[in-house]
Amino acid sequence: MPHNIAILGASGYTGAELVRLIATHPSFEIKALSGDRKAGQPMSSVYPHLRHMELPDLQRIEDIDFSGIDLAFCALPHATSQAVIATLPADLKVVDLSADFRLRDPEAYAKWYGKPHSAPELQETAVYGLSEFYREEIKQARLVAGTGCNAATGQFALRPLIEAGVIDLDDIVLDLKAAASGAGRSLKEHLLSSEMSENVKGYSVGGTHRHLGEFDQEFSAIAGRKVQVQLTPHLIPATRGIVMTCYLKGDADAAYGVLVKAYADEPFVQVLPMGEMPQMKDVRASNFCHIGVAADRVPGRVTVIAVLDNLTKGSSGQAIQNANLMLGEDETVGLMAAPVYP
Amino acid sequence: MPHNIAILGASGYTGAELVRLIATHPSFEIKALSGDRKAGQPMSSVYPHLRHMELPDLQRIEDIDFSGIDLAFCALPHATSQAVIATLPADLKVVDLSADFRLRDPEAYAKWYGKPHSAPELQETAVYGLSEFYREEIKQARLVAGTGCNAATGQFALRPLIEAGVIDLDDIVLDLKAAASGAGRSLKEHLLSSEMSENVKGYSVGGTHRHLGEFDQEFSAIAGRKVQVQLTPHLIPATRGIVMTCYLKGDADAAYGVLVKAYADEPFVQVLPMGEMPQMKDVRASNFCHIGVAADRVPGRVTVIAVLDNLTKGSSGQAIQNANLMLGEDETVGLMAAPVYP
Amino acid sequence: MPHNIAILGASGYTGAELVRLIATHPSFEIKALSGDRKAGQPMSSVYPHLRHMELPDLQRIEDIDFSGIDLAFCALPHATSQAVIATLPADLKVVDLSADFRLRDPEAYAKWYGKPHSAPELQETAVYGLSEFYREEIKQARLVAGTGCNAATGQFALRPLIEAGVIDLDDIVLDLKAAASGAGRSLKEHLLSSEMSENVKGYSVGGTHRHLGEFDQEFSAIAGRKVQVQLTPHLIPATRGIVMTCYLKGDADAAYGVLVKAYADEPFVQVLPMGEMPQMKDVRASNFCHIGVAADRVPGRVTVIAVLDNLTKGSSGQAIQNANLMLGEDETVGLMAAPVYP
Amino acid sequence: MPHNIAILGASGYTGAELVRLIATHPSFEIKALSGDRKAGQPMSSVYPHLRHMELPDLQRIEDIDFSGIDLAFCALPHATSQAVIATLPADLKVVDLSADFRLRDPEAYAKWYGKPHSAPELQETAVYGLSEFYREEIKQARLVAGTGCNAATGQFALRPLIEAGVIDLDDIVLDLKAAASGAGRSLKEHLLSSEMSENVKGYSVGGTHRHLGEFDQEFSAIAGRKVQVQLTPHLIPATRGIVMTCYLKGDADAAYGVLVKAYADEPFVQVLPMGEMPQMKDVRASNFCHIGVAADRVPGRVTVIAVLDNLTKGSSGQAIQNANLMLGEDETVGLMAAPVYP
Repeated sequence: MPHNIAILGASGYTGAELVRLIATHPSFEIKALSGDRKAGQPMSSVYPHLRHMELPDLQRIEDIDFSGIDLAFCALPHATSQAVIATLPADLKVVDLSADFRLRDPEAYAKWYGKPHSAPELQETAVYGLSEFYREEIKQARLVAGTGCNAATGQFALRPLIEAGVIDLDDIVLDLKAAASGAGRSLKEHLLSSEMSENVKGYSVGGTHRHLGEFDQEFSAIAGRKVQVQLTPHLIPATRGIVMTCYLKGDADAAYGVLVKAYADEPFVQVLPMGEMPQMKDVRASNFCHIGVAADRVPGRVTVIAVLDNLTKGSSGQAIQNANLMLGEDETVGLMAAPVYP
Repeated sequence: MPHNIAILGASGYTGAELVRLIATHPSFEIKALSGDRKAGQPMSSVYPHLRHMELPDLQRIEDIDFSGIDLAFCALPHATSQAVIATLPADLKVVDLSADFRLRDPEAYAKWYGKPHSAPELQETAVYGLSEFYREEIKQARLVAGTGCNAATGQFALRPLIEAGVIDLDDIVLDLKAAASGAGRSLKEHLLSSEMSENVKGYSVGGTHRHLGEFDQEFSAIAGRKVQVQLTPHLIPATRGIVMTCYLKGDADAAYGVLVKAYADEPFVQVLPMGEMPQMKDVRASNFCHIGVAADRVPGRVTVIAVLDNLTKGSSGQAIQNANLMLGEDETVGLMAAPVYP
Repeated sequence: MPHNIAILGASGYTGAELVRLIATHPSFEIKALSGDRKAGQPMSSVYPHLRHMELPDLQRIEDIDFSGIDLAFCALPHATSQAVIATLPADLKVVDLSADFRLRDPEAYAKWYGKPHSAPELQETAVYGLSEFYREEIKQARLVAGTGCNAATGQFALRPLIEAGVIDLDDIVLDLKAAASGAGRSLKEHLLSSEMSENVKGYSVGGTHRHLGEFDQEFSAIAGRKVQVQLTPHLIPATRGIVMTCYLKGDADAAYGVLVKAYADEPFVQVLPMGEMPQMKDVRASNFCHIGVAADRVPGRVTVIAVLDNLTKGSSGQAIQNANLMLGEDETVGLMAAPVYP
Repeated sequence: MPHNIAILGASGYTGAELVRLIATHPSFEIKALSGDRKAGQPMSSVYPHLRHMELPDLQRIEDIDFSGIDLAFCALPHATSQAVIATLPADLKVVDLSADFRLRDPEAYAKWYGKPHSAPELQETAVYGLSEFYREEIKQARLVAGTGCNAATGQFALRPLIEAGVIDLDDIVLDLKAAASGAGRSLKEHLLSSEMSENVKGYSVGGTHRHLGEFDQEFSAIAGRKVQVQLTPHLIPATRGIVMTCYLKGDADAAYGVLVKAYADEPFVQVLPMGEMPQMKDVRASNFCHIGVAADRVPGRVTVIAVLDNLTKGSSGQAIQNANLMLGEDETVGLMAAPVYP
């Protein structure tokens, strides 16, 4: 039985990625696409790579007839998303890809995003969309908030370790390398090809990156105490992909054992043999996450590296994984395509 | 009913691409993988991006049990391929991705490849694997010779025009831009990242590129007279993709009409609106070919640009399309994944 | 004796390239830098790579004291340039890097740039700044109009051949590959890293690229008759560099001889051994132009490829070469730095 | 007075970079170039970008007449270098770019490089070539050992901080991002463009990178006690450049003050305004090093990032800086070219 799908905000990269993945999803059917500034245009004029697909034209959200729609993906900008979702039919299932519903605490939201939440009653009901760890809640949810792409990468590396108590919670250092598409299709000088090529730059230094709000929330909840990681993101000259290098204190073998056990039955998370490190390109355009562990020469130190594709497992693939759960499908449907290499 | 598949030469890029595409093919099952120098190793040690798949280990070709195998893809180096295929069971269907069986004329083969063919009797029986133009022969074939990736791109642009007689056959200029993976995973200095980045270089200049043998064969056959194109290939700083820019003499509207009509029912070939030009990235990692046509300001001149992904439509995707035809499947099975963008 | 220099429009790429080159020029001293939107800022806040230099802050053009300035480089946008230059002191030498004064014929200007020239009396006096061919005029000029980067590349390949009469003037096909910095530091979607990476796209197809106006003017003047080339530009995934592939009819050996002779004494133009083709990276960040020639297998056809760096020889390096001539310096001063490789 | 220079191992990237830099050095004259496998060839056949220079042909080291040579740069592979230098005239000044003479302790050498040193008597006399910190010793030295490119980057960030005692010596975490040219022009699969593009990979994990030997030696010497840093290198998809992100415990303002003071008079080391982070591209192809400092939200934590170009400041530029010192020239001669941006 096909499920009728709407994608709100289809003209951004995560919107286009949703369409790409749904193109081979056997039971999802795209019934509506919104794109306010491009309303009236065919999707192929915004994304010619989708030219072969039969897709509805882009329209304004207020012109969409949501009767008959089973689930809407919201790939709208932050802040816009909460305003739009508040207007959607109450029985419409929603997977939000923005940052709007990730933080459960209204004060934390206000702190990281600079203003109060405009739909706090919805915020309360949203389920955090890291499928592997919130599976049962997601199945029952009406509104699922997609995990931030960087936050997802760090959590795949660290959640089991924090839960098992095998690392020092007061000394977690994360070095993030993030490709450009994480910043979307936005016209910013530093995202120009001539600026990005042959370049690497630290940004949001000093602990100001918003995904830290998610780390704080999730890690503290697991640990049962306040946990604050030190994180420096770097923009790297690539289009898709995230590498999270975690510098930890603890026993490497214990950490490795915990991760292997945690992900033994997970279809999308692969723990590499001990001492092997993943490469970003090995998960390109796929829903997989690869994790590697190595002991350091400095006793009691361990390095864990996790990689995933920010647009797929970090965003649109994760969103479809959650939609599968919400609609009673097998979690992996439409998501088993192998990474594109080279 | 699943078809049992062997991939000979699975450790190269086209081999890995075959595995990637078959990962989501509903009726192909990989039963054997060969890789002589890597025999005994799991595929995931050669290509960690395939780690999540259950695949047979790499083995030597002579150790493969071909009983029960329905079709073998040969992704072996040129010259090796003809020697190996000559030893395969006579009832085993074979799709060859090398250059060994593309040229029907033994003299042409000897001229372009520098030595006589070692299996001329097989050469006679091979069907040229440009699916859109040899569909019926391929359905009946035992041995199909995959079209060269550059040769395929040029033929998609030009075959209908030559057949319709709308361009000057004596003045066809082709400027080719080809990404690095077309040269395979081979250790050559000019393929190093430090050499390729920020670089473009003409190569095989003066009409010495081997794919010219295919153009000569095919275009002359269609035209019923000798046709020789002028071609200069350029290596561009990208991993996947081919852009063939064709400078032609003829009427642009007539040429456009011919191409639109020729590909109206083809699932994989998309002709863009008149005057729009395709971009290489719009077909990335997919089996699609995009073609654009524009009139030039110089009267009587027309420019046609065709793009495809050398590893997919130019090689492994095309091979699966042919295998589908040979095994009685729908031609598009397993090949409708949308291009990866951005 | 140092020459006092002003750079108008220093916040763009060609402005920054002028500063970079002048940093090691022994007799040029930068006395003023303009950047209207950035007025008041230090250059290092716009271009941190120039942090080590002592430079005047950016200011508005109307705030610059031009007394004591010997020469101004105008690196302003097209159209702005003609308005600004019309207001500069009449005895101030000017090298304009924009397109505003390249076309001598007011009608040609209006045709290619879409509106009448606002300073036609200046247009008449401007000297075309292709140093190697207008050397004597440039020495005497007050206003020199820098050649377009693509137009320069094509002219280095073709001017001697047209003058010598060794190629067919009615069949000149040019395939242009141009890196992103040619489009400047402008916020356009197609210039984003995520769009450019792994991409190649034809643009301004059909003979609509404005540099064709320069080709028409110059080639027709040399030939003494109307010459119209067929040109298709392509944007390639690189930051600096231009490759012009010229498909010509004529005798390859004759063409080669003409080019060797024409550039025998030119310090910046290198003709490679017959049959060798230049690569774009070999002139990176330098003032050199490399040219290669090969005969094609099709009798009577010859391929010529010319490469240069659009920001250096194609723009700011060329501008300094012209300024050297105008100020009585040796033409090569400050310009002999070797290309950056790899 | 010109100094006569020989470059041994001119066919590698650091050799080519030496030639590039010497091209505009007013008092260095290249008298001999060695390249064993390419002996007899002109340099322009190995590096066509140097085509415009008049250079001696490549020859075998044993064929070089060292009388009249003032200084030799050794850009030979590790291990080869010590064997060759042992055979050079005792009065010939030598700047070695290999790793052979960086470690003063023979046991440390044997540990990190896997075998005993073959010229231990030379090893004793070598001066460590980090110009800014060994200036006086270098002026008197006969043999200077160039600092490793990664080791140099880390030392610029950390030496003053360790010396001033403002950071916790037991908790230094370094995350290294290194571009491909650091691995030279060597034919390795992971250095192919198709493998590197869109990829990031951790390597030499667990504290096995050889440049750790230099950190151990230098930092322990400064601190007067054993210091062991934790380091994970990552290969990034770029050609030139190193980014060293240092996660430290200490007071950020104190650290910033120390660095500003340490480098106040250094021409090549630029400390950015507090809280600003350097980008790799801002030092491209130059001899500059940029350093940024930021306090973290976690109290008592500070992040320091240093960037430089591995081939210039990290290797050949540094070597010329040392040669200037050894030959009585001003340290900055030939090295003040501005970075190439974009």
